[in-house]
Amino acid sequence: MQITADQVKQLRERTGAGMMECKKALAETQGDVERAVDALRKSGAAKAATRSGRDAREGIIESYIHPGNRVGVLIEVNCETDFVARTAEFQELVRNLAMQIAAAGAEFVRREDVPAERVARERDVYLGQLEASGKPAAILDKIVDGKLEKFYAELCLMEQPYIRDDKKTIGDLVREAGSKTGENVVVRRFSRFRLGLD
Amino acid sequence: MQITADQVKQLRERTGAGMMECKKALAETQGDVERAVDALRKSGAAKAATRSGRDAREGIIESYIHPGNRVGVLIEVNCETDFVARTAEFQELVRNLAMQIAAAGAEFVRREDVPAERVARERDVYLGQLEASGKPAAILDKIVDGKLEKFYAELCLMEQPYIRDDKKTIGDLVREAGSKTGENVVVRRFSRFRLGLD
Repeated sequence: MQITADQVKQLRERTGAGMMECKKALAETQGDVERAVDALRKSGAAKAATRSGRDAREGIIESYIHPGNRVGVLIEVNCETDFVARTAEFQELVRNLAMQIAAAGAEFVRREDVPAERVARERDVYLGQLEASGKPAAILDKIVDGKLEKFYAELCLMEQPYIRDDKKTIGDLVREAGSKTGENVVVRRFSRFRLGLD
Repeated sequence: MQITADQVKQLRERTGAGMMECKKALAETQGDVERAVDALRKSGAAKAATRSGRDAREGIIESYIHPGNRVGVLIEVNCETDFVARTAEFQELVRNLAMQIAAAGAEFVRREDVPAERVARERDVYLGQLEASGKPAAILDKIVDGKLEKFYAELCLMEQPYIRDDKKTIGDLVREAGSKTGENVVVRRFSRFRLGLD
């Protein structure tokens, strides 16, 4: 069992324990970081019971509450330096992203974030809808793939057309911000609440 | 297989399909609401692909972003009428709850929301910490129970002492709001983001 530098780094961030303690704990748990966290907590080597990790990621957390307080969004966008995070341009980007999510209702940041089970379920529903059409299987597959692309474009933030300029996607908008600032700009996560709903 | 009125109501809310269609779909899926949703989507009876439920719950969605934009909270608090939701008192309560979550870092609304696996893991860590103490098992159990109570009081919003008046818990605060308004006041959910962390 090879313990990777990345596992050690993760464990150090999670527990604040020393390098050698982390390596030892990982060796004992065959590289299972979660179990290593528990082991370090048991032995008292972990600095705190809860996650106290440090991470190089900079950026800002912002919110947008739609007037009437029935829809709200919380978002984290990362960049590489606090300097960029404090610029008006970066902050405007984040506000625009939060408004986009409130208005257009993304559920995921990018298509890789959609659980495989959800995709399988969509595929099954589309096939069910087409069952009576009598079309050959190869055609059905193409139609289902097309519907899935539409599903991703609707539910994944990065693939949605930007509400303030539908000639570009949100992915384009974020990449533009990356070029302008010279930093890697990443939408890390968001939450969207609708009153009484999802 | 008995189909309950509640299942039919849920399915109607989720799909917007008619009462008889919902009953039929539930009968065919042995009361499995998720599969019934899919069946109604396949047959075209569901009004929309995404959840379009209606719910009687009123209240507001609010956010609190800590100065510096490194910690942010999104919260939904429900009451029974829009009239109460619009009062200054209710809105102040929600703002105070959002600030509490930002400052004190709850992870769950109430102890029932903590996954059983997480509780088992905490219990295991506490037992590990006490292993070397040589105390009898009955005493160990008591100590572990005590530590678990502390864990709940730290991580569950409703059990935390209120940061602006630590003589009461957040549960007390919410119940007071319920008595004052004469309505059931419920913290439904929240998200808390820390920049680059959890």
